[in-house]
Amino acid sequence: MKPFIHDDFLLQTDAARTLYHRHAEGQPIYDYHCHLPPAQIANNHAFADLAEIWLGGDHYKWRALRANGVSERFITGNASPREKFDAWVATMPHTLRNPLYHWSHLELARYFGIFDSIEPKNADAIWQRANATLATTRVHDMLRDQRVAVICTTDDPADPLDTHERIRASGIATRVYPTFRADKAFVVDQPEAFNAWLEKLGGAARTTIRTFDDLLAALERRHADFHAIGGRLSDHGLEHALAADCTRGEAEAIFAAARAGKAASPEDTLRYGSFLMLEMGRWDAKRGWTKQLHLGAQRNNNTRLLRTLGPDTGFDSIGDFPQARALGRYLDRLDSTDELPRMVLYNNNPNDNYTFATMAGNFQDGTIAGKVQFGSGWWFLDQKEGMEWQLNALSNLGLLSRFVGMLTDSRSFLSYTRHEYFRRVLCNLLGAEMERGELPDDLELVGGMVRRICFANAREFFRLELAPEFAAAN
Amino acid sequence: MKPFIHDDFLLQTDAARTLYHRHAEGQPIYDYHCHLPPAQIANNHAFADLAEIWLGGDHYKWRALRANGVSERFITGNASPREKFDAWVATMPHTLRNPLYHWSHLELARYFGIFDSIEPKNADAIWQRANATLATTRVHDMLRDQRVAVICTTDDPADPLDTHERIRASGIATRVYPTFRADKAFVVDQPEAFNAWLEKLGGAARTTIRTFDDLLAALERRHADFHAIGGRLSDHGLEHALAADCTRGEAEAIFAAARAGKAASPEDTLRYGSFLMLEMGRWDAKRGWTKQLHLGAQRNNNTRLLRTLGPDTGFDSIGDFPQARALGRYLDRLDSTDELPRMVLYNNNPNDNYTFATMAGNFQDGTIAGKVQFGSGWWFLDQKEGMEWQLNALSNLGLLSRFVGMLTDSRSFLSYTRHEYFRRVLCNLLGAEMERGELPDDLELVGGMVRRICFANAREFFRLELAPEFAAAN
Amino acid sequence: MKPFIHDDFLLQTDAARTLYHRHAEGQPIYDYHCHLPPAQIANNHAFADLAEIWLGGDHYKWRALRANGVSERFITGNASPREKFDAWVATMPHTLRNPLYHWSHLELARYFGIFDSIEPKNADAIWQRANATLATTRVHDMLRDQRVAVICTTDDPADPLDTHERIRASGIATRVYPTFRADKAFVVDQPEAFNAWLEKLGGAARTTIRTFDDLLAALERRHADFHAIGGRLSDHGLEHALAADCTRGEAEAIFAAARAGKAASPEDTLRYGSFLMLEMGRWDAKRGWTKQLHLGAQRNNNTRLLRTLGPDTGFDSIGDFPQARALGRYLDRLDSTDELPRMVLYNNNPNDNYTFATMAGNFQDGTIAGKVQFGSGWWFLDQKEGMEWQLNALSNLGLLSRFVGMLTDSRSFLSYTRHEYFRRVLCNLLGAEMERGELPDDLELVGGMVRRICFANAREFFRLELAPEFAAAN
Repeated sequence: MKPFIHDDFLLQTDAARTLYHRHAEGQPIYDYHCHLPPAQIANNHAFADLAEIWLGGDHYKWRALRANGVSERFITGNASPREKFDAWVATMPHTLRNPLYHWSHLELARYFGIFDSIEPKNADAIWQRANATLATTRVHDMLRDQRVAVICTTDDPADPLDTHERIRASGIATRVYPTFRADKAFVVDQPEAFNAWLEKLGGAARTTIRTFDDLLAALERRHADFHAIGGRLSDHGLEHALAADCTRGEAEAIFAAARAGKAASPEDTLRYGSFLMLEMGRWDAKRGWTKQLHLGAQRNNNTRLLRTLGPDTGFDSIGDFPQARALGRYLDRLDSTDELPRMVLYNNNPNDNYTFATMAGNFQDGTIAGKVQFGSGWWFLDQKEGMEWQLNALSNLGLLSRFVGMLTDSRSFLSYTRHEYFRRVLCNLLGAEMERGELPDDLELVGGMVRRICFANAREFFRLELAPEFAAAN
Repeated sequence: MKPFIHDDFLLQTDAARTLYHRHAEGQPIYDYHCHLPPAQIANNHAFADLAEIWLGGDHYKWRALRANGVSERFITGNASPREKFDAWVATMPHTLRNPLYHWSHLELARYFGIFDSIEPKNADAIWQRANATLATTRVHDMLRDQRVAVICTTDDPADPLDTHERIRASGIATRVYPTFRADKAFVVDQPEAFNAWLEKLGGAARTTIRTFDDLLAALERRHADFHAIGGRLSDHGLEHALAADCTRGEAEAIFAAARAGKAASPEDTLRYGSFLMLEMGRWDAKRGWTKQLHLGAQRNNNTRLLRTLGPDTGFDSIGDFPQARALGRYLDRLDSTDELPRMVLYNNNPNDNYTFATMAGNFQDGTIAGKVQFGSGWWFLDQKEGMEWQLNALSNLGLLSRFVGMLTDSRSFLSYTRHEYFRRVLCNLLGAEMERGELPDDLELVGGMVRRICFANAREFFRLELAPEFAAAN
Repeated sequence: MKPFIHDDFLLQTDAARTLYHRHAEGQPIYDYHCHLPPAQIANNHAFADLAEIWLGGDHYKWRALRANGVSERFITGNASPREKFDAWVATMPHTLRNPLYHWSHLELARYFGIFDSIEPKNADAIWQRANATLATTRVHDMLRDQRVAVICTTDDPADPLDTHERIRASGIATRVYPTFRADKAFVVDQPEAFNAWLEKLGGAARTTIRTFDDLLAALERRHADFHAIGGRLSDHGLEHALAADCTRGEAEAIFAAARAGKAASPEDTLRYGSFLMLEMGRWDAKRGWTKQLHLGAQRNNNTRLLRTLGPDTGFDSIGDFPQARALGRYLDRLDSTDELPRMVLYNNNPNDNYTFATMAGNFQDGTIAGKVQFGSGWWFLDQKEGMEWQLNALSNLGLLSRFVGMLTDSRSFLSYTRHEYFRRVLCNLLGAEMERGELPDDLELVGGMVRRICFANAREFFRLELAPEFAAAN
């Protein structure tokens, strides 16, 4: 039987195959947003076995295991690595049509050269061959093999940047930059967590935070620190954009109460956050950064398992919050004083695709091609159907040609196959339309767009410094 | 001309045809939710003519007739059966691309062996042949011919169960179970209807209902009665999940006021209902039942025709209520005390597909495969496009392999063709992906999944007792 | 290389090609809603050059230019026509997969016989050939060449109708009718604009408007004036249907305050508008008109550019307002007194497709086939994907066969190619389903439906008087 993963996987037409192999496959990877742990890059981490690299921390797989009736012991519990691996292999045949079925096979093929069907009868062989490869393949090897030009990790401004400095000092060709994600600056409704974080932030910013002005000064100092090390992106995870009215005096008062241990009401939390979001947007604009908004997830739905397992363990889902009014207002406020930075807008609910894609269009002002980006399919939308929807919405309502393309958003070093997956989906879509006459039968025209979406657009848009071999790639 | 309905109807690829004919077609039917009248089963009803069985009570067809400009006289009015039949036949060519066009042809083909195009020139022939068949084919014949293993009807706890006892006594192979649907327990905003229903419920539960505790006791006694006769499912029709805060004391007070004839406010109705939903969820968990939530319909939109024709006559439509927050909270409250029963979540608005499919994932806890099910396309979504969306959402965000599959939700005995329709849609989808290399080219692997979705998953999940021939089916 | 636009553009199957060429292509155009300037028709306007007719006023193209990083000077600024043309030609290759890529090529092909790829190397040739054609082709020529039977423009009741009288006197075969769109009657929250408009309306209605009764009388007189000149449609642009409770006394008081210069609150603006919408619905019902509701756009998102460029310049987008409850209530109130006129419901957010399509079904009462229409893909949805979604929603939930079909909604005389585009999309969809056996293999049956959707249904539904050659078209 032909292996499931082969050269033309997902590529249904001649045009698609030509586009992929000639224009997409060879492009380096520009991963402008992910959750990879910087320490594992700095330490050039070696993985103990396939269970660690493949199953540890991957809450997509954990959800599938639970839905398959597998006990938590074999997921996050104290079962042995091999037991966890076997539980996953036994679950794999039940993931047919789930992106995990494609991803998992791609991961074994590209990182380990394993093309076997993932099912119990092949478990021993897979386990042994993959572990043998891992014995000689560490993080830096993987980044080199996958041709990763850029990684933007996700970092708290209260975190020190020494890990990033060690990465830079390591001399790898992959540039790794921190992304400024200050979600914890918003939790005035949780004074205990808020104040603990303020102490930590004060330490990182070499100051003491007593007032709201102190907080803003400390945050902006860290923003400058991130800039100095090469960072050019910020990020926010929010249910919806924050755009309530709030004066500086009101924000100061809400901060002061929280600093003194008094939890803010939901309304005040929203108002305070709205003020902060404007301030932070202005810093991005001033320094030429790009701000990312990840909107619409409904997190921590399962209280019982949150208590035992903590956040980000597979109990988040898609929310249905109204988005358009507040998002428009937030962008407009920044724009009205000409302080709107480059933006990437990500939605968690596919219903918001068209709304977000048209919202981006309202703030294209002719200064930068694709200034406000409608971001690639995020989280639950990071699969073939979701990617196609995003590509179609962006195409129909904006300029696909100016798209900065794929990111991994992942916690796993095996996820660089998702760039391959995205590229195959993209080329398949375009190739089919070329063959149907919906796109011109012009491989140079369409292929040029593919190349830009895979790499060049992001390089031009985010303006991060690259190693010479990637700065010149074409 | 080749007849419209033929062996390979809707099956576009060789793989689809093999999957359907080898794995789907022969499976019995497990109809775990419908609105068939138990009395017609108990009485082994004989239908007077094609108009009665085909048009009586089918509000999908009624809506199409009205949209075609047909007067109410020929729909629910006093026109003769033949006149109503002729009105429908004349409307049929105008239903091209509507599921009624497929369904109606399938119904005539499978129940009557009629493969003619349904249009006025064939009206006489259809009328005569179908009526001839009906003269010798009664309800029990149809259930046997369609290989229906299970029917779960929809029952008010205030209804007696003697009809179900008569069905069991009839000795038919089809097992028919009542589903506990206590929608009328929630209408504290309509004291007149509420109190009349309480009297009836009290009679069924052999008690008198004065207090809220009396109500809970009476309902739970009926829950136990339904259990004793073999029922294992409950059901709720709601605009959205009910998850407001409400203490027992508050619920008691709201009940007492309504019992005394005072209508509850919308807020109190929501609070009272939220309390009741938790109680009823716990009973389901305790007895190993499955709870169904049908969420999102906006009913009785047309006041003028509601007054003349009553509810469920074709004036309901799709609502756009926010769903995620309250649904998450309801499930979480039950789960937090480990009292979450098996669930099936149905949405009326396709926008909620992704939200619901991910919500189900939050409460898979590894105890039962597919414990929280994202239900099959419901009502307006019970058609090819809607089914495909549901299958895709479930596949991308959960485990299709653990899906309990199709149900009819119908009021008509002719609707068992909808299981055939679903199976063809499912096999067509899977077959196309096999031929495109998106699924492995492994008919045993994919075919096994098809068999489970058609029958075995539901049998295992709902745990209803079956006749021996169906208990052993494979 | 085969030209991009050719006879079978978008038509993938033999059935599609036959349907299009035999049944769709030859049908005249019934454009029952657009924003063409009546004065340009009355004056038989001659266009100075391709920039004027192609780029002037087309905010779809303006948005694409801005997203491509083109400065406003070349969009709405003082660059020369040729400079603006060149900016657009340079942007065109970046619009791949955007409907503008298809539309622009179709426009040059059908109006100018130009089949070249639109890109900088062909700019000179296109500019010269198109301008040569424009030197001898004026508005009336275009309407004749495109076989436009009807144009319904969009008119303020405060506008005089003399332009429409001049058009009628010109003797062209195209019938041009005004549509009654009284959006400015609702702005009691903007007393300055409101009062200026009242003065103007008073002049048009030959009266003085002091009270709410005066306003209603003036508006209804204009309604009658529009009727007298042949108009049979009204239109409203709203975020959502208005259906709050409001007595006549309350409406009078809100009006009086606004007339005296006091801005109404948002709540009062909603209540006043709700009253007015009922009144205006009744006039439509009384005179046998059709009311159009355009719901769901979120307008004027960019304050900075609104200030410099004014409204309708490309800063509107898709809103996510709840729609179902208020829309149902508005239609029900009119229906409850049997005063619901024919309706066309348009949604701006594709999420509302299913909601709107089922809502239409609630008010089909058997008096008129397709009495409540689910309108064709509007604005951002007026592209292939959006059209297919609308056609699928309508088909699955209503009767496609009774659909009144396409409109342009455009400000440009070049947009009649969008009817061709729609027809190709429609025939392609139907043809593919015929070849797959999802529709009967009966070209007369399906072709008859195509003809009706292209022209005859609209002619029958709207009941506008046509020139004899179009009144008899079949």
